[in-house]
Amino acid sequence: MSILIKNIGLFPMDGKDEWIENTNIYIQENKIIHIGEFREDIEVEREIDGKNKVAMPGLVNSHTHIGMSLLRNLADDLPLHDWLTKKIWPTEAKLNGEDVYWGSLLSMVEMIESGTTSFCDMYFFMDRVAEALKESGMRGVLTRGLIEEQGESQNKLDETRKLFKDWHGRADGRIKVMVAPHAPYTCSPNFLKQTMDLAKELNTGIHIHLSETKKELEDSLKEHGKTPIEHVNDLGLLDFHTIGAHCVHVNDDDIKIIKEKGLFPVNNPTSNLKLASGFAPVDAMLKAGIPVALGTDGSSSNNNLNMFEEIHLASIINKAVTGDAVSVPAIKALEMATINGARALDWEDEIGSIELGKKADLILIDTDKSHFYPHHNQISALAYSTQGSDVDTVIVNGKILMENRIIRTLDVEKIKYMAEKRAQDLISR
Amino acid sequence: MSILIKNIGLFPMDGKDEWIENTNIYIQENKIIHIGEFREDIEVEREIDGKNKVAMPGLVNSHTHIGMSLLRNLADDLPLHDWLTKKIWPTEAKLNGEDVYWGSLLSMVEMIESGTTSFCDMYFFMDRVAEALKESGMRGVLTRGLIEEQGESQNKLDETRKLFKDWHGRADGRIKVMVAPHAPYTCSPNFLKQTMDLAKELNTGIHIHLSETKKELEDSLKEHGKTPIEHVNDLGLLDFHTIGAHCVHVNDDDIKIIKEKGLFPVNNPTSNLKLASGFAPVDAMLKAGIPVALGTDGSSSNNNLNMFEEIHLASIINKAVTGDAVSVPAIKALEMATINGARALDWEDEIGSIELGKKADLILIDTDKSHFYPHHNQISALAYSTQGSDVDTVIVNGKILMENRIIRTLDVEKIKYMAEKRAQDLISR
Repeated sequence: MSILIKNIGLFPMDGKDEWIENTNIYIQENKIIHIGEFREDIEVEREIDGKNKVAMPGLVNSHTHIGMSLLRNLADDLPLHDWLTKKIWPTEAKLNGEDVYWGSLLSMVEMIESGTTSFCDMYFFMDRVAEALKESGMRGVLTRGLIEEQGESQNKLDETRKLFKDWHGRADGRIKVMVAPHAPYTCSPNFLKQTMDLAKELNTGIHIHLSETKKELEDSLKEHGKTPIEHVNDLGLLDFHTIGAHCVHVNDDDIKIIKEKGLFPVNNPTSNLKLASGFAPVDAMLKAGIPVALGTDGSSSNNNLNMFEEIHLASIINKAVTGDAVSVPAIKALEMATINGARALDWEDEIGSIELGKKADLILIDTDKSHFYPHHNQISALAYSTQGSDVDTVIVNGKILMENRIIRTLDVEKIKYMAEKRAQDLISR
Repeated sequence: MSILIKNIGLFPMDGKDEWIENTNIYIQENKIIHIGEFREDIEVEREIDGKNKVAMPGLVNSHTHIGMSLLRNLADDLPLHDWLTKKIWPTEAKLNGEDVYWGSLLSMVEMIESGTTSFCDMYFFMDRVAEALKESGMRGVLTRGLIEEQGESQNKLDETRKLFKDWHGRADGRIKVMVAPHAPYTCSPNFLKQTMDLAKELNTGIHIHLSETKKELEDSLKEHGKTPIEHVNDLGLLDFHTIGAHCVHVNDDDIKIIKEKGLFPVNNPTSNLKLASGFAPVDAMLKAGIPVALGTDGSSSNNNLNMFEEIHLASIINKAVTGDAVSVPAIKALEMATINGARALDWEDEIGSIELGKKADLILIDTDKSHFYPHHNQISALAYSTQGSDVDTVIVNGKILMENRIIRTLDVEKIKYMAEKRAQDLISR
């Protein structure tokens, strides 16, 4: 398939911070083959009118648990401990593969509708998530969350091994598989080492929760005499390509380690606020040259998967935290959600910006809505004014997943029906 | 006009915190005349199908500057002082009545599209805002912002007097006029007293910015030996019905005064974060029994007028500020945006909840979107999952302003065109 997106405003996010008016983007198969003047010599099968639209790289949701959407709005306004132990965990224990499959499809519908093209997921029944991903046309890093459990740990490691064998590099290269020790507080040093061995064996990266809550930090200091970042670093875990979800309670020494070892922290602003986890030092990390990425976390601690909400939050919260209205400017927040996400997912060479030769993962925003008027600064508008529902068209790997807000790859009505049915069934199980 | 909204989910926000499944709402002229079982004896001219929809009171944006939408995305990521002195004030100085008229209409389109039915505005050329309000069908408190200015102060007071005479109670009772001394730092004690005299003469309320920034607090302590709240209280200003925008930097004594004197504080989370003003102690104020309201502030410090974003922010930010995931639960944030707003605008008897005999100011949310599935807790969904674009229908004073997302009272295309034209002209003036 070859596509021409004609006469469009473009924010390529290729590091030049440039806004390009009225240009043309040519896609052939799954790649961007030309950006700029109209070319009569390039034959195209599909033309998309870019009038009143803006193109930007597809958003990368760098930390989520998409199967959890079946638990959305099930438990809110509870203390963290009650939320987890009385509501989330008992319900999760009842989930089966079919639930996770439909929950994942629901999440993919929601992500496509709000401009996300890639995501990094940590959950279980990940083979079913892979199936759903294959159908949806999205791109993702899939990781089986590994909580140490007597008698079960080896099985879980084997599940990851099988997932890797069955799915890594599949679905036209849209799937990667990494190893996901859940967190230093749910995995002993010994088990963490086993997960590292597996990552080494598979030659892949690691996805882990790090320093999410104050309690986690305090417990780590008590148990190991080290912060969670120091602890996993001393174990050698940061020698891998590592995606560190949250990194809320990190101090200056932690930031040095993150920078030196090239850990990829993922900020999850809504979740960190809603669960009262705190404020991650995003401004300080960005200023240290760390490419902080952005994620929604799962739907039960958010309660949606709308990356434009996270962009908005990341940009404005950090200004109040630092007392500096200039910190995390629009462009940095947009980078967090695109190119920095691509870096975190170890996919920087192929996605995260709109550049010649990169994979065609991009979204078109309809800027003809009232809240875009007048059109003073389009980059500001993308960070501060845009809603997820302004996303008009989503292209992943050169394929149109949504156009005029109609999803083409999935049966949305069936997915909503099945997700509702399975969720109600889950509650009464 | 009589309307029946049939078979709808209802969150009346009448203080009972109840969710009502599958009910019927009858509207006659501008009032709600029946809620509950289907009644054959009530004749209706229009029937609205409530399937997959939820009714809640229209949102009240309790502090904004709607004429500023022409400056949206004009100046961002700047230090507050540069933002004001180099960008906002010089541009505002060039605004004329025609600009404010079209900017206000643009804001009203945006507010209706995201579920706001009432607002409290502080700006200038307020007669033109009143015209725009009359046309749009919205409801609002209009206030001419009064910054003390040698040789001009009396004229500005006279403008308020004329605005009151021309517009208070007009447009089918949808307009109120109050007196708006801009802030204690832009009005001397003597001028504040003049504005109070005017409020007394007109028998109306006051709308003022209070304790927005740390600098304002520090300057007030230096100049008056008092916090801004103490200062205006000692002048007698809080003896009026007073809407206090921001109230970010308030201490426990201030909170006592606010409670005792019945000041109506308006939280503006996006603006307070984006301008790095800080975190208002919303949780503490609510727990003290103060009905904190919610606002967007102007489009240039936000950069939109989407109250669902403010609801979301108010609920989640305060959890992280207090470290308590239970603070400002969904229902409280929704109250801030509805009934508390009605209280602030001195309109509690007529709007802010869906109750028998109240004015029919309500909105219908389309909950058939992917991010509402599954439908576990609809109240959580309204605060945490809802987007402004989920608002399907808006009714004010018994009149349908928007249905199926089509605005009926205003020529949206013309307004977008004129706002763009005037904004570009303004820049080059």
